[in-house]
Amino acid sequence: MDTLHHITRPAIDQLPRLERAALINSLPGFRALNLCGTRDLRGDTNLSILSSVVHLGSNPPLLGMIIRPNSVPRHTLENLEATGSYTLNHLTPDIIRQGHQCSANYPVNVSEFEATGLTPWYSQSHPAPYVAESRIRIGMTFLERIDIARNGVHLVIGEVTEIFLPREALGQDGYVDLNAAGTVCGSALDAYHLPEFVARLTYARPDRPVAEIDANGNPVS
Amino acid sequence: MDTLHHITRPAIDQLPRLERAALINSLPGFRALNLCGTRDLRGDTNLSILSSVVHLGSNPPLLGMIIRPNSVPRHTLENLEATGSYTLNHLTPDIIRQGHQCSANYPVNVSEFEATGLTPWYSQSHPAPYVAESRIRIGMTFLERIDIARNGVHLVIGEVTEIFLPREALGQDGYVDLNAAGTVCGSALDAYHLPEFVARLTYARPDRPVAEIDANGNPVS
Repeated sequence: MDTLHHITRPAIDQLPRLERAALINSLPGFRALNLCGTRDLRGDTNLSILSSVVHLGSNPPLLGMIIRPNSVPRHTLENLEATGSYTLNHLTPDIIRQGHQCSANYPVNVSEFEATGLTPWYSQSHPAPYVAESRIRIGMTFLERIDIARNGVHLVIGEVTEIFLPREALGQDGYVDLNAAGTVCGSALDAYHLPEFVARLTYARPDRPVAEIDANGNPVS
Repeated sequence: MDTLHHITRPAIDQLPRLERAALINSLPGFRALNLCGTRDLRGDTNLSILSSVVHLGSNPPLLGMIIRPNSVPRHTLENLEATGSYTLNHLTPDIIRQGHQCSANYPVNVSEFEATGLTPWYSQSHPAPYVAESRIRIGMTFLERIDIARNGVHLVIGEVTEIFLPREALGQDGYVDLNAAGTVCGSALDAYHLPEFVARLTYARPDRPVAEIDANGNPVS
């Protein structure tokens, strides 16, 4: 086995701030990227890019997301708490630059939709703005904010109220073919990647080997 | 714009359990995958696969991870709470099947290392087992468990104590080239993907367009 480079905790703590942020943000691995759409109580739109959306449960369908209080998505947090509503929109290759630009620190009265050229789109049943250019769009209702006292970040918990996605990306067993939908992922603070499908595997059991299945859950011969 | 398929909340709630789980687990997008290594107080090893590791902060370096109480990683939770120590190890294409097999519901006295053929490896400064086949390995010290009362899941918070990674994957500005390290990502409950690099972009500011940079943070001409 080749030798890996060893970075100790004292070495991490001595890194310049931006270098440390790039390194530590790289550690989870590739990250889900979502554009989060909200409106304030006057109806003005806001859009931020999030890299820490996680699955919390399927019944009821709950997603969580980490928001730092001193970061750009703070307008997002204010809006979703005020209105109870937000959207999550997958990033696709066509809109990487616009999505990244949403992380710029715009004044509160500037809509990232207008600033980046992304298009707000509304469903008939959800008040928060979706991103028309996005191919997977999720309507969310705010439920709870958990404050993590240790370093001041927030875990925002919401429930899924509706989903829009390409019909051909939805498998017969509920699997969503994110590759077919063109969803991208991120790494560190500023890198964008397009995943290529490697394999889907059967439910693992202690007493038998796993086998490959397709996007509908059927065996691959 | 083409028409997207609309899934309402009542339709989600009426799905069969496994179909709903596949759909809702697909919603965050591509997910970081990590093998989590622990030992119990007798020294017996355990390894689980996690898909919800998130960045919480860089100074101090904190990572969070979601663990469901009734899921396979419950031995992981017991061990890291008992010993205060765990490891996170990136999944690479070579070990996708072994990593997936770690999600099988083995008895508590069976080590997933032995069951899957993955190799435990120890550093001189950290008591929990790393995965020798993994190219990015992170030593973690357990700090805190936050219980999410709403649906019984736990957010486990830990701090980074050491990092092992390929020297050539570490950029001059702290960026880790996960593509060079061969890190894979996941989607839904059972799919594995290998991301291809698309672009890295400069820090976004309201008053200027973003530009491409390389893995060392230098401009791409």
